[in-house]
Amino acid sequence: MKYYPVHTGYPSYAEVNLAIEAAFAEHGRGGVQMPSKVYVTLIENGDFRTMPAYLPTLDIAGVKIVNVHPNNRAKGLPTVMALTIILDVKTGIPTAIINATELTALRTGAGGAIAAKYLMPRKPVTLGLVGAGRQAGAQVEATATALEIDEIRVWSRAQKSAEAFASRYSGYNARSVSIERACDCDVLITTTPSVRPIVMADWIHEGTHINAIGADAPGKQELDPAILDIAEVFVDDPGQAIHSGEINVPVSTGRYDPAQVAGTLGEVVIGKKGRSSPDAVTIFDSTGLAIQDLAIAALVLQNGEGYELPFP
Amino acid sequence: MKYYPVHTGYPSYAEVNLAIEAAFAEHGRGGVQMPSKVYVTLIENGDFRTMPAYLPTLDIAGVKIVNVHPNNRAKGLPTVMALTIILDVKTGIPTAIINATELTALRTGAGGAIAAKYLMPRKPVTLGLVGAGRQAGAQVEATATALEIDEIRVWSRAQKSAEAFASRYSGYNARSVSIERACDCDVLITTTPSVRPIVMADWIHEGTHINAIGADAPGKQELDPAILDIAEVFVDDPGQAIHSGEINVPVSTGRYDPAQVAGTLGEVVIGKKGRSSPDAVTIFDSTGLAIQDLAIAALVLQNGEGYELPFP
Repeated sequence: MKYYPVHTGYPSYAEVNLAIEAAFAEHGRGGVQMPSKVYVTLIENGDFRTMPAYLPTLDIAGVKIVNVHPNNRAKGLPTVMALTIILDVKTGIPTAIINATELTALRTGAGGAIAAKYLMPRKPVTLGLVGAGRQAGAQVEATATALEIDEIRVWSRAQKSAEAFASRYSGYNARSVSIERACDCDVLITTTPSVRPIVMADWIHEGTHINAIGADAPGKQELDPAILDIAEVFVDDPGQAIHSGEINVPVSTGRYDPAQVAGTLGEVVIGKKGRSSPDAVTIFDSTGLAIQDLAIAALVLQNGEGYELPFP
Repeated sequence: MKYYPVHTGYPSYAEVNLAIEAAFAEHGRGGVQMPSKVYVTLIENGDFRTMPAYLPTLDIAGVKIVNVHPNNRAKGLPTVMALTIILDVKTGIPTAIINATELTALRTGAGGAIAAKYLMPRKPVTLGLVGAGRQAGAQVEATATALEIDEIRVWSRAQKSAEAFASRYSGYNARSVSIERACDCDVLITTTPSVRPIVMADWIHEGTHINAIGADAPGKQELDPAILDIAEVFVDDPGQAIHSGEINVPVSTGRYDPAQVAGTLGEVVIGKKGRSSPDAVTIFDSTGLAIQDLAIAALVLQNGEGYELPFP
């Protein structure tokens, strides 16, 4: 059994996007085992999630354990930290423990990039960003590897964050704008921890694709539910989306019927589902899949360096 | 973050029993968070289970990951291997990774001992054992710490195993016997991986307490369901027992109604439930709780030695 601290030498987005796309395809073909993630609530507004899965095409199985503690920043710790434990599929022996904190950001970014690649017909694209934190950066970098970006419009509740983000991505013509202006784009990416709608239906024009990334726990939502009424909603996993994705609040209030979901991203990747017309508004409701964690773990195991630990 | 290989220096059964009893009591009071364990099926007849929990009284949270691969013995590996990951409840940062293979055996033994202590009114006791493997030994040792044992009657499908077991525990007047004779006892402990009943109702006399330990996955059962009809069945966790405990097969066929369950071991420990009379047959249906794993992990963290690992 080896421990992989993974402080440097991350896989490139070219590799990550490819691995994540293959994992979604296998999900679309029904070739994976992945129970819904399980939530445990802790103190100080924190929780942790346990995400087991088995991805036979890569001969890899394991569990990601990931916390979300919004108050951590004040303590000098990341809000989200993660470990992935890998088991040998033939014997069940744990073979690797991987620091998955940064990998979680990368694989989520890649999920958005794959969704945009399949659901946004126009190229090159204008990206709109609502939220300018770590995940917004991951989405930009992963998407830049999958699509040509000719402009970025970024909004953050903290204008300074948006300005810093814009100067970091000035190579893509990034500018800090109003939230309405950010929504005027080809691919809108929302990455905030909001618990009430902040993106209004009036601001979204025909043909836009939205990556709704922020909602990842019961009670969180970023989009005006009126957008869901007109949009074609693709989810990563139906069970997880209903429990904790962008649709979780409107489903729980009866405002949105889960039967309206147009399909999964996996089905989109294998060509079984897709946007109905260039003018449709499409949404990818991302909650994060355990098979994404296994797919990126497999890249680390190929190239990373680990410490040998005694086991059993 | 530290890794605890735990190859020596196990906590004593005196400590383990006390810690496990306290964990069951807190479960009985409803003071824990513990979603049902989640199963993922692997190849070669193996699976792994993910067991997250939070035990506020000990300020401890985490996840045990444990496999079951019956074919491992031929490969020179344990059938069951486990890791427990501990998270700080205030920040979610992983603080410890513990080799929980042997700890799993200890905490399961202690669960049986606590059940026998509360549900077997006669002292000293004759123990009957059906199955003579690692867990049978753990049950004997934990029970010997909780109760006075004046005789052990042990049966195994492999008579040599039963004889070796009897000589190992000769201090408790242990003898290898027929399965019928093993069932003629005060506390019967079944620890086999059987998928069909091997303990018949005719063999069980009034007043016996049965620790049904072996069934821990859908499809497994050791007891003639006619025993469930006459017995008072206590479970560790209702959801887990219905899914994968001794009652899982009779529940799935409609032979046993889960509403017949008399209570949980936690409720027994806090005095809310108990055997109705000295003549009743009682059963403890053990599936293994994640809070048992956290309770024994807390003992290791107090005294064990770990390797420092870089995180985050």
